[in-house]
Amino acid sequence: MELWYTEKHTPGAGLTLRCRKTLFSTRTRYQRIDIIESDEYGRVLLLDGLVMTTERDEFIYHEMLVHPPMHYHGAARNILVVGGGDGGAVRELVRYPSVRKITLCEIDSEVVDASRKFFPEISRGLDDSRVEIVFADGSQLLRGKEGEFDIIIVDSTDPVGAAKALFTHQFYNSCRKALDRHGLLCAQSESPMYHLSAIREIKRGLLSAGFSFVRFYCSPVPTYPGGYWSWVMAGNGKFQREKVARVILPEEEYQVLKYFNLDIGQASFCLPNFFIKAIGTS
Amino acid sequence: MELWYTEKHTPGAGLTLRCRKTLFSTRTRYQRIDIIESDEYGRVLLLDGLVMTTERDEFIYHEMLVHPPMHYHGAARNILVVGGGDGGAVRELVRYPSVRKITLCEIDSEVVDASRKFFPEISRGLDDSRVEIVFADGSQLLRGKEGEFDIIIVDSTDPVGAAKALFTHQFYNSCRKALDRHGLLCAQSESPMYHLSAIREIKRGLLSAGFSFVRFYCSPVPTYPGGYWSWVMAGNGKFQREKVARVILPEEEYQVLKYFNLDIGQASFCLPNFFIKAIGTS
Repeated sequence: MELWYTEKHTPGAGLTLRCRKTLFSTRTRYQRIDIIESDEYGRVLLLDGLVMTTERDEFIYHEMLVHPPMHYHGAARNILVVGGGDGGAVRELVRYPSVRKITLCEIDSEVVDASRKFFPEISRGLDDSRVEIVFADGSQLLRGKEGEFDIIIVDSTDPVGAAKALFTHQFYNSCRKALDRHGLLCAQSESPMYHLSAIREIKRGLLSAGFSFVRFYCSPVPTYPGGYWSWVMAGNGKFQREKVARVILPEEEYQVLKYFNLDIGQASFCLPNFFIKAIGTS
Repeated sequence: MELWYTEKHTPGAGLTLRCRKTLFSTRTRYQRIDIIESDEYGRVLLLDGLVMTTERDEFIYHEMLVHPPMHYHGAARNILVVGGGDGGAVRELVRYPSVRKITLCEIDSEVVDASRKFFPEISRGLDDSRVEIVFADGSQLLRGKEGEFDIIIVDSTDPVGAAKALFTHQFYNSCRKALDRHGLLCAQSESPMYHLSAIREIKRGLLSAGFSFVRFYCSPVPTYPGGYWSWVMAGNGKFQREKVARVILPEEEYQVLKYFNLDIGQASFCLPNFFIKAIGTS
């Protein structure tokens, strides 16, 4: 018998992975969680039937979510991660000696439990003494906070269901208020191949929340829709791409990164024409 | 009834596309040709059952195959394309006023015929008066040629079957001899996700053929294995990335390109750590 997991990225196109078995399945208050063992990508975490992360290609997504904003900021001490219950973003953040506190705000405690059990390589940063895990809705945690964080990282699912609130103007506005004036918001921002209208909405929402720059950057992520993903970074002042190339990690950390380096960090902000045209130049 | 075409990129992972119908199928002396109509990617050209090009994402592959070496060279007049019977590479080449002659050397005339009929947007450059189509084996056409071409572009299938000869040290050596001393060889070089050992072989072959630099560059290509592709450029002298960013096309041509621009051309030569580690730094 051969088992194949197929994710339709659109009604007419998808990814298909041969699996050995299902390791874990549950329905939580918020979503369905499945973990399968695939031949090509190792263990795969699925939320509501969609691939969130795989052992083989998670390094690209997590490194690109974290290191561009951390380098751009240069001296971030206090970080909030909204979502990201698998721990991958936290693993990348604990590499930085400058970081004093990381708050992981995940709505679903069972994602964290499952990741600790089935993805030890992804979740290992969660045990760092600087990490505090809060099981709450990100938008509630932000309420009333002002100038507290250097960086807010939104590591969410797609803008449907529980995560929809994390793509609104209201949420972006709360983030802006909760950030220090040198602060940055960074979020996964969907596939340039399939989600250009969502990407346009994200840009509009961030600009109307008062950020003075909103910049997208891209990279391949083989198991995500179109094999092609984007992230967005928003902040104050004038965007300066060269800030992404500052040396701020100890040399040994640059050696162990599998995707990010100072060159590719900067380069990822260069966008293809169709993307530039879709989002406009404002 | 729903028809789904599935390409296994490895024994355990693949791409799946819903199709409306098969438009064309034949077996030539060299290979099987199929053209299907997909919902998401429009018409798809398959050779021996593998996706070669699709109406929706072909622009990425063809623009990235042609414009980086053309910009690096800066004044190429005489170009040889080996393979590329769909005409996509030629369409990008005829944009250049500097180009005097393009020789398309395709082994299988039926690929050209099928592309003219079913992919008018891809094949339209083939009617340019500077284009000569030769139906022959690329390695035979090169025999005895010296210093003739400014750029040789290898737009081949994977290194199996007929195309295997186009990945050998002997072929690279013929190319080097057939190139002017400022000449460049550019070739598709497989997926960074699945084919790192083939990529290493390509590098070794090109260096041992006497090219003084061998540089890879990458981009997402959603319908190719891993959604992630690479190309290689080899030449003499010292590689200078900034050469890729020279303005050498008329402004109106830059406006119509859908992927390539001077920024992303340069940026695509920035490689992620796992790729650099796999190919070594020599």
